[in-house]
Amino acid sequence: MLSSLIDFSDYSFIKCNTVKSDPLSSRSMASKTPVGFIGLGNMGSPMAKNLLRNGYPVIATDVFPESCKELQDLGAQVVDSPAEVADKADRIITMLPSSPNVIEVYTGPNGILKKVKKGTLLIDSSTIDPAVSKEMAVAAEKMGAVFMDAPVSGGVGAASLAKLTFMVGGVEEEYHAAQELLTCMGANVVYCGQVGTGQAAKICNNMLLAIGMIGTAETMNLGIRLGLDPKLLAQILNMSSGRCWSSDTYNPVPGVMEGVPSANNYQGGFGTTLMAKDLGLAQNTATNTKTPIPLGSLAHQIYRVMSARGYANKDFSSVFQFLREEEGQ
Amino acid sequence: MLSSLIDFSDYSFIKCNTVKSDPLSSRSMASKTPVGFIGLGNMGSPMAKNLLRNGYPVIATDVFPESCKELQDLGAQVVDSPAEVADKADRIITMLPSSPNVIEVYTGPNGILKKVKKGTLLIDSSTIDPAVSKEMAVAAEKMGAVFMDAPVSGGVGAASLAKLTFMVGGVEEEYHAAQELLTCMGANVVYCGQVGTGQAAKICNNMLLAIGMIGTAETMNLGIRLGLDPKLLAQILNMSSGRCWSSDTYNPVPGVMEGVPSANNYQGGFGTTLMAKDLGLAQNTATNTKTPIPLGSLAHQIYRVMSARGYANKDFSSVFQFLREEEGQ
Amino acid sequence: MLSSLIDFSDYSFIKCNTVKSDPLSSRSMASKTPVGFIGLGNMGSPMAKNLLRNGYPVIATDVFPESCKELQDLGAQVVDSPAEVADKADRIITMLPSSPNVIEVYTGPNGILKKVKKGTLLIDSSTIDPAVSKEMAVAAEKMGAVFMDAPVSGGVGAASLAKLTFMVGGVEEEYHAAQELLTCMGANVVYCGQVGTGQAAKICNNMLLAIGMIGTAETMNLGIRLGLDPKLLAQILNMSSGRCWSSDTYNPVPGVMEGVPSANNYQGGFGTTLMAKDLGLAQNTATNTKTPIPLGSLAHQIYRVMSARGYANKDFSSVFQFLREEEGQ
Amino acid sequence: MLSSLIDFSDYSFIKCNTVKSDPLSSRSMASKTPVGFIGLGNMGSPMAKNLLRNGYPVIATDVFPESCKELQDLGAQVVDSPAEVADKADRIITMLPSSPNVIEVYTGPNGILKKVKKGTLLIDSSTIDPAVSKEMAVAAEKMGAVFMDAPVSGGVGAASLAKLTFMVGGVEEEYHAAQELLTCMGANVVYCGQVGTGQAAKICNNMLLAIGMIGTAETMNLGIRLGLDPKLLAQILNMSSGRCWSSDTYNPVPGVMEGVPSANNYQGGFGTTLMAKDLGLAQNTATNTKTPIPLGSLAHQIYRVMSARGYANKDFSSVFQFLREEEGQ
Repeated sequence: MLSSLIDFSDYSFIKCNTVKSDPLSSRSMASKTPVGFIGLGNMGSPMAKNLLRNGYPVIATDVFPESCKELQDLGAQVVDSPAEVADKADRIITMLPSSPNVIEVYTGPNGILKKVKKGTLLIDSSTIDPAVSKEMAVAAEKMGAVFMDAPVSGGVGAASLAKLTFMVGGVEEEYHAAQELLTCMGANVVYCGQVGTGQAAKICNNMLLAIGMIGTAETMNLGIRLGLDPKLLAQILNMSSGRCWSSDTYNPVPGVMEGVPSANNYQGGFGTTLMAKDLGLAQNTATNTKTPIPLGSLAHQIYRVMSARGYANKDFSSVFQFLREEEGQ
Repeated sequence: MLSSLIDFSDYSFIKCNTVKSDPLSSRSMASKTPVGFIGLGNMGSPMAKNLLRNGYPVIATDVFPESCKELQDLGAQVVDSPAEVADKADRIITMLPSSPNVIEVYTGPNGILKKVKKGTLLIDSSTIDPAVSKEMAVAAEKMGAVFMDAPVSGGVGAASLAKLTFMVGGVEEEYHAAQELLTCMGANVVYCGQVGTGQAAKICNNMLLAIGMIGTAETMNLGIRLGLDPKLLAQILNMSSGRCWSSDTYNPVPGVMEGVPSANNYQGGFGTTLMAKDLGLAQNTATNTKTPIPLGSLAHQIYRVMSARGYANKDFSSVFQFLREEEGQ
Repeated sequence: MLSSLIDFSDYSFIKCNTVKSDPLSSRSMASKTPVGFIGLGNMGSPMAKNLLRNGYPVIATDVFPESCKELQDLGAQVVDSPAEVADKADRIITMLPSSPNVIEVYTGPNGILKKVKKGTLLIDSSTIDPAVSKEMAVAAEKMGAVFMDAPVSGGVGAASLAKLTFMVGGVEEEYHAAQELLTCMGANVVYCGQVGTGQAAKICNNMLLAIGMIGTAETMNLGIRLGLDPKLLAQILNMSSGRCWSSDTYNPVPGVMEGVPSANNYQGGFGTTLMAKDLGLAQNTATNTKTPIPLGSLAHQIYRVMSARGYANKDFSSVFQFLREEEGQ
Repeated sequence: MLSSLIDFSDYSFIKCNTVKSDPLSSRSMASKTPVGFIGLGNMGSPMAKNLLRNGYPVIATDVFPESCKELQDLGAQVVDSPAEVADKADRIITMLPSSPNVIEVYTGPNGILKKVKKGTLLIDSSTIDPAVSKEMAVAAEKMGAVFMDAPVSGGVGAASLAKLTFMVGGVEEEYHAAQELLTCMGANVVYCGQVGTGQAAKICNNMLLAIGMIGTAETMNLGIRLGLDPKLLAQILNMSSGRCWSSDTYNPVPGVMEGVPSANNYQGGFGTTLMAKDLGLAQNTATNTKTPIPLGSLAHQIYRVMSARGYANKDFSSVFQFLREEEGQ
């Protein structure tokens, strides 16, 4: 399915892992103790199911009761609040839409930290501002718990097939414990460093991805108008220094490649608004760290305009279509 | 040497060639007739030498007499003007700095077209505006001659080692005749289409290269400030959708790779002013064809500013250095 | 009419004139000798009529015969080519769409310079690349003629009412002679310096205008989304350092001002494609002079995209509409 | 002094005030009750002094004890924490460097809200994210207090001379009470609307100011390279549609105007890092409201790069100097 196109499933991500790992720590494998899961949306639901499939009891909750029903039928215990999850599980995974949700679920009146037990491992797979990840880690540490950020690459398809890639930030000593759970849900787990670096890695990758995609779209469009055949131009770029993932794996020009969103009217794939959201995070972290990102910033603006002009739900490679139209057409 | 880093010598460029080629046409191989060569600069001089090495008599000229001396000592016949070259050779290669030079050498008072013979093959390896290539082709055709554009990738090192890549535009029937000569000077020759498409391919590649390089520099800088180890970040990007030639082959961050300009204080490689020049060509062709190139255009501005602020002669990957400095340092 | 909104008719432009002027030179006023006029389009036609109204015999031509008819009925003599105009008049005004037209009309096979008489005054009111103006001046000088560039501000309405502003470049000695004619067609004439500086002044003004307009649109849009009343925000900006022509005289937000295109669904005014054309000229001159114009360049890209996405014929202040739409609407 | 150049002191800002005001409410004027002041930096200190001059008892605090000493000598009562200020005064003004400081001073362990009395009027003159202003207002309301944002325009000079401009957001009923105090410290007070709109107005103005300044710098630089005299070009722009505050009041080109930072090697005025900070706020609010600001965003990046490349403490008009240098110089 196209929905899994933006994963890294062809790569041996685990090789990046600089931690010598003994993947099954004795503590947790003596018996499979319950795992908490908060946030049962399009991504969270299949992730939680994969924990169940791997034999872990799951204690789950979500603001939408209907999201809990399916998981309950599969054997999960559903509770009313993050605080209750924290009361019953000492390993908890959260998968939420944005920073404010994460703040609420961890530090809100019924949040995890109200009832978290000492030594609990908290893994947040949401894609959020790394500064918020750091805040959560500090708050968790005050309660004697451990917080790690572990955002994912890969869409709903990769989540269902347990082929996600996790980029993990947090104290190295706890990485193995996190890895045990994450490998049930993903094909690759990479340790990135201190808390927040998982988010940083994801944000950085997606920013460069956006720049490469818009650049490829501009370049292909220019070449075509200058008389080059699009397939030949793609071949030339891919053998040359212009080569990038967007030119050789996910070419945005219809007719150049098969099995990519550009071959399917830009349906499926990674939506323009999702890219705009990730670029917003990149923008915020860059602003806050006083880091100049001229192209990343302009890429953000372009996806922002596209989101408002009918491209919101198209794959982000539709920037080719956005830029290509000629006057008078 | 670093000077050859921006070539395509690891790739089998020739595979792009969609023309079924019989590389040695009977006409030219009966005996090696003289080849004209105009423009004996840093690139032209080693190119002409490679023609001599392959047994072609060379008739050469250059505006700087001293440039001719060395080639003369190696056996070339030196004459006074492009017109004289045209008088003595029916295959002529030109390698000049910019569009105005090309216009002068072809159509000026002592230009090639003043004495060109019917059927002469004119190959221009300069990097210029494709619109000028088309003008020269029209002017040549009026005189019964054939003009092809064949700009190169690869620096002085690649020129010396006959490892250049030529991107060729022009009538397909004459491509084999051009190929015979170009293979003496380069490792790869790719046929791109009608006149001007060689220039178009080169301009497009270099525009995407510039975008990818600045994007990589921004991304690495942002990641580092967010606490990621630069080598690890490069690994993650290179296994992911952020991957591009600038991240995996020519990384701009000192310490990430060896044998690239960033490992050598940005010396050697492809200078910032040369990149700014190529981006100026991209900008002009985009403006003239009403093609939007938001990132390409901004990349142009960035290299323009860098050229004026002390980075003129540094490799274009020094954009990392340009962007990285922090306030107060 | 809205079409004259972008003129300078409220300003005493003439004050800029640093030349001490005796507006009526004895030579030309002894009797009104014929004036040539080439290019009878939307702008050229009313300009030529104003010369007729002021008592000048007009010798005219245009590539479209129908354009000549109306002027002929008003008393102009119509001839077949620019060369013929040059044969019959020693003062000639040209008003053409773009650089290639100017090159053709001056240096083409039936061009002015084929029959131009020594001492002829050539005034080009087209908006073109200043480099082309300089080329034409050199070519004219070889024939003993004098070339001046005198592009206009103001639309069709200002042309009809003889309220154009002319920005004039050329040798200072001939400025008075040019001024005599230009004051028949415009309210303000400003001497800018050597040949090409008239074009330069126009290009510079319009580039800053485009930047100010997009900036105003962004700012108003941001302020509105942050809860500010648009009229109050405009008031605040206009009393503050954010003030510019686009905020205080031509506000792009519907409802803030009356009598501007934003009050009339962006009809009339100065079309997006015309702005894109002028920004293309700015871009080209900046590229050719190696001048960084980051905002001007991005403004160019934005108007280029708008031109292709349904805004081609709307006033350039419609960039507010282009940027304002929200996701999901 | 140059430091007051970016104020609005020449404008009758008060005219914007849509509230019919009775400037002296009976409550506060029966006798001058104490006013709290928190944040005695470069700006806060002269502001507090002006309250003293106007006869208000001042209860002050600052994290740096030495900042308090001078004010104490002038008669202010110095206390140890914001909470203590809140204990002793029912009108409090805060003037702090950035959002985190504001959050700490209001909601921290020794913050204002720990001891604030019902009905207390809290006025924050810091320049911060309007979202933080709204958060503070909500937190204050819970304690029965009223929070208003009132950021200033005008530098240290304007603060000393009580010539600041205040842009005020908050509930309209309390505006008069705020106005009473603000008029002691500023020449102009403008009511902008609900809480956060004061910040919004300031951010919007400064974003458009930055765009206009960079645009003016680019335009002047381009014109100069095209042969125009800078003074003449400024005259033309200022009479035309390119006119803006940066071209007619604060021209960035040395020699064009007197009494501005460009006439004084860009000393004084409004520093590049301060502009970068305000653009960072604009960027954040735009990202958070999904508002595209292509030029504002690029302006932010440019001032960010400048801040790191030796322009941190120069006036923001030094962008002309940053862009003007030519290759080879």
